[in-house]
Amino acid sequence: MKILSIDTSTVVATCAILDEEKVLGEFSLNQQVTHSENLIPMIKEMMDGLNLNIKDIDFFAGAVGPGSFTGIRIGIATIKGFAHVTKKKVIGVSTLEGLAFNVPYAKIIIPMIDGRRNRVYTGIYGWEKGKLLSMGNETIIDIDDFLRNLDIGFEKIVFNGDGALKYKEKIMNILKERAIFSPINLNMPRASGIGELAMVKINEGKAVDCYSLVPKYLREAQAQMDLIKRGY
Amino acid sequence: MKILSIDTSTVVATCAILDEEKVLGEFSLNQQVTHSENLIPMIKEMMDGLNLNIKDIDFFAGAVGPGSFTGIRIGIATIKGFAHVTKKKVIGVSTLEGLAFNVPYAKIIIPMIDGRRNRVYTGIYGWEKGKLLSMGNETIIDIDDFLRNLDIGFEKIVFNGDGALKYKEKIMNILKERAIFSPINLNMPRASGIGELAMVKINEGKAVDCYSLVPKYLREAQAQMDLIKRGY
Repeated sequence: MKILSIDTSTVVATCAILDEEKVLGEFSLNQQVTHSENLIPMIKEMMDGLNLNIKDIDFFAGAVGPGSFTGIRIGIATIKGFAHVTKKKVIGVSTLEGLAFNVPYAKIIIPMIDGRRNRVYTGIYGWEKGKLLSMGNETIIDIDDFLRNLDIGFEKIVFNGDGALKYKEKIMNILKERAIFSPINLNMPRASGIGELAMVKINEGKAVDCYSLVPKYLREAQAQMDLIKRGY
Repeated sequence: MKILSIDTSTVVATCAILDEEKVLGEFSLNQQVTHSENLIPMIKEMMDGLNLNIKDIDFFAGAVGPGSFTGIRIGIATIKGFAHVTKKKVIGVSTLEGLAFNVPYAKIIIPMIDGRRNRVYTGIYGWEKGKLLSMGNETIIDIDDFLRNLDIGFEKIVFNGDGALKYKEKIMNILKERAIFSPINLNMPRASGIGELAMVKINEGKAVDCYSLVPKYLREAQAQMDLIKRGY
């Protein structure tokens, strides 16, 4: 079984191919260029390097957010396109769950994606018996509110993601030496993690057809809110 | 400060560029093609995607082994070539240390690279106060001997690398539920980890000129041993 996975829901564009045993390839670029320009050439380079064709892929997995609305749309559209043409199934994975998955076996890990205007997309995750579990709903929240109300009785809490980097000082001011930050090599979304989480979902029978894949914005896009305000 | 890092000392070819704050790009291919064919095109693709030129790189870092002799030589030759042309310094990092670095904050982690004929290249690492420390010399050893004599008083031991995957059953037979295996996305060498470890060494003043970079074979190559036998 081969899975092609991508995550374009943050400033990072990342794609990977993996099977049950190993990551066959992964390509990530972390920069301010439109993913719509970068993503397909990156996937092509990786597949050419592996001598694989899109028809060799059994499942397509994508991060469904939260994160940049445009980025999420590009990722989901790409996955849907591939799955539609090849008549294969798709799996959506939370971007935050993917980030948390980067830091294996941490008791508590809080991934944070910068949501601008002092807000972060975040959730609370933890590893139990080799499995990553969600400890509550993902949300978008003011970083100060979140930290003020963060009351979990763990000695150490691992933080990662660009939101954690941006608000590192605030986090350290509140949590002091209880806060640990991920090494930088595990601080960004990685498609290989999205793919490995997708594999678990596939084995649980949770792969769906391409029409059923929906984004996880966590809040409405500014454009949608403007439309609603204007009575549409 | 920008670091270009590579690791070709196993079957995986991996390259990355990072600065003090983040990984800018990473490209890894895990397959049986000669690294001498793959590596330069991979680096070129990654740098083109980041709009960077080899002259933008401040330090070159490479995994120096242990692992495949040919792979190590290709990696070191590439790093030396870049550094020589651009008159920049280089940093060598142990492949095993890079593998151990993949699993942050584990108390004990044992990376293993398949050394064929029932042997693994291995070492014992642990995280203390956010830093990865070596707990003993790296070695090449018969897997059964190693496991029989492994007597470290830790409740859980994390294993990763292709050697750990190959001898998973043997490890589990001896260590039972004390053995934990890395998720597959962190089971292979990653150049970003090599680059991050190199950054620590750079800050400690340990970068050297390209002539001083030496491989870490841990045993003599078959060809060298044949020469020695024949009295050369």
